[in-house]
Amino acid sequence: MGIRDKVAIVGMGCTRFGERWEAGYEDLIVEAFQEALEDAGMEKEDIEMAWLGTCFDEVSTGKSALPLSVSLKLPFIPVTRVENFCATGSEALRAACYAVASGACEVALALGVEKLKDIGYGGLPEFGSAMGSRNRILFPNVTAPGAFAMMAVRYFETYGLSPERGREVLARISVKSHRNGARNPKAHLRREIRVEDVLKAPIIAWPLGLYDCCGVSDGAAAAIVVRAERAREYREDPVYVKAMQVATSSGEELLHRWDGCHVETTVRAARRAYQEAGVEDPRRELDLLEVHDCFSITELVTYEDLGISPRGKAAEDVEAGFFELEGEIPCQPDGGLKCFGHPIGASGLRMVYEVYKQLQGKAGPRQLRDPRLGLTHNLGGFPAMSVVSVSLFGLDRG
Amino acid sequence: MGIRDKVAIVGMGCTRFGERWEAGYEDLIVEAFQEALEDAGMEKEDIEMAWLGTCFDEVSTGKSALPLSVSLKLPFIPVTRVENFCATGSEALRAACYAVASGACEVALALGVEKLKDIGYGGLPEFGSAMGSRNRILFPNVTAPGAFAMMAVRYFETYGLSPERGREVLARISVKSHRNGARNPKAHLRREIRVEDVLKAPIIAWPLGLYDCCGVSDGAAAAIVVRAERAREYREDPVYVKAMQVATSSGEELLHRWDGCHVETTVRAARRAYQEAGVEDPRRELDLLEVHDCFSITELVTYEDLGISPRGKAAEDVEAGFFELEGEIPCQPDGGLKCFGHPIGASGLRMVYEVYKQLQGKAGPRQLRDPRLGLTHNLGGFPAMSVVSVSLFGLDRG
Repeated sequence: MGIRDKVAIVGMGCTRFGERWEAGYEDLIVEAFQEALEDAGMEKEDIEMAWLGTCFDEVSTGKSALPLSVSLKLPFIPVTRVENFCATGSEALRAACYAVASGACEVALALGVEKLKDIGYGGLPEFGSAMGSRNRILFPNVTAPGAFAMMAVRYFETYGLSPERGREVLARISVKSHRNGARNPKAHLRREIRVEDVLKAPIIAWPLGLYDCCGVSDGAAAAIVVRAERAREYREDPVYVKAMQVATSSGEELLHRWDGCHVETTVRAARRAYQEAGVEDPRRELDLLEVHDCFSITELVTYEDLGISPRGKAAEDVEAGFFELEGEIPCQPDGGLKCFGHPIGASGLRMVYEVYKQLQGKAGPRQLRDPRLGLTHNLGGFPAMSVVSVSLFGLDRG
Repeated sequence: MGIRDKVAIVGMGCTRFGERWEAGYEDLIVEAFQEALEDAGMEKEDIEMAWLGTCFDEVSTGKSALPLSVSLKLPFIPVTRVENFCATGSEALRAACYAVASGACEVALALGVEKLKDIGYGGLPEFGSAMGSRNRILFPNVTAPGAFAMMAVRYFETYGLSPERGREVLARISVKSHRNGARNPKAHLRREIRVEDVLKAPIIAWPLGLYDCCGVSDGAAAAIVVRAERAREYREDPVYVKAMQVATSSGEELLHRWDGCHVETTVRAARRAYQEAGVEDPRRELDLLEVHDCFSITELVTYEDLGISPRGKAAEDVEAGFFELEGEIPCQPDGGLKCFGHPIGASGLRMVYEVYKQLQGKAGPRQLRDPRLGLTHNLGGFPAMSVVSVSLFGLDRG
């Protein structure tokens, strides 16, 4: 079961991420949409249905899909909001893909947006209420850095990394992403850093320091989806959806069988995505990755959860440069959450944007050599209470 | 374009709505789900994907789809939250239908839930922030009763109804729903009322009094969807989706061409739904309606917006008993929002529950004679800034 090769992306847009004090959410929506529309060579009237991905509506857009329909003055088409913590952007795309694959419409828009700089994470009522004790689901009174830091401590312990080596491995991940992000005009943080900068930075939650954490920013990204068999009517190089899978925690990991240093939802979603796309050996077959590096440790663990690095061996791959821009499977060629920050609703679509541009050979100074198959990994929640979306995108149809 | 006859509902559940002080949202989720599962003759493991409809996460379930996956201990399947103001429940069902119709899965769950009694509308931060000035979309500082009351005043004026006759027509709508709701063990308000009770009740926002407004309650409802061609493997009397359409405002109505006494999104969604289902004359072809009677005036205007009563003539239909349980097209046979209250995420699915039971001939003392085609109408937002879902359900496959 799946939607392999049933739909394709024919247009994408992505704003510059960062401190967008000058722009309201409406401006970000328009900016991402206009680029996507022009990229697809379409008119606004071609859009038949739309999905808005936004998470912190309380401080960002407000509820419902009206912020999208009103900002774009969409003419009475169906517009719906989806939200799934930090995987919200990917979920908007999945909804649009299902709509097109089902025959409900021919052309669908997925747009994710979030404005966080005006208030920032610290000011979010969510972190004291809904994400904490109110919904009785995540650990109350544990911050996101705290939750992922515990995974790092456990990872170091389980696989025998000394704190020194462990922290240096994590630092290399951030250094790599900053090197890529520095080449990206749409990134928020566009400067290279050195391992020693990371190690000397203030500790946020041991062993994670400032540079192990992604930033807080504003941004939006958008995708236009059509049926695969009509994709070449719109452009020569459509990007086909090869797999789109999600796994959601039931909470059982917290109570049983969890080693504390992997994310089971990533494992499940990836396994199903490879099956859907016919990928047998991801380490050999994948050409690039955009993963959910909310923290450096998340990226490290994800290498293993995706079946690319063997268990406990991701550190060796990092040290060998496996995930560098010139490595075997470049990861975060655009700079990742590390350099873009994480405007929640936008991040999943921002990842797809980079894969899309890379597959089309339009990634500028970050362009990889002839990539054919890219993966996005978007994680919401905490390690053992999470929703993960894993998608595969390819340049060739089936 | 559409999903007519592609999917069918084979199981539904609905909790008793009301002051459910004894139940958390988890309990309501489990209660609605268990009934749906037993109704479908399925095991939990048969569910392949799920959607959670919930609107006021701040005071209800918290964010994301984890409240559903954790409450039901769903084994790592994809679970996603949708939200679209008061149309949230219908939107969860639409997502599940698209997933099945797309081939992404065989069996999908849509579940809507909201717990409002613990805090009530008045305590919702939304009404001072996101639904008001924060998202700059709805009128700031206008309450829901206020917005719909203005439509009533305008309607009376436009169509020459004296305030006395107008208020009595609206009262008859509430009296009719209470009569139906009194026969429904799942309704919140289970008592009959008289026209004079409505007219004597305290005014909430002129010309709407207490009995012109739906109540505040807790509740949950759920549907299990499968591909139409496999529906009879699960039960003899599956209910087929004949049409499912949504229309969303762009805000333009507020500025131009709005007469102030109709809801354009209902008109658009209904027109498309009739086209999808092949309905030419809704007044002749429809057998029952479940509409979004958040206020009595909303139901009155909806009769016309759905193309059942001619413009300005709905009052005559009300006076003739057209929408009574024994009338031509019974409306709100279950008692409607009027008697169920409006736990936001649940309402759209609660409407579908009644249509489903009526089509199957299992509506108990409210059972209509041999209905074949039912309509649900779920409205979110305010009259000129709204999202409306109109769906048609039938007993026979096309």
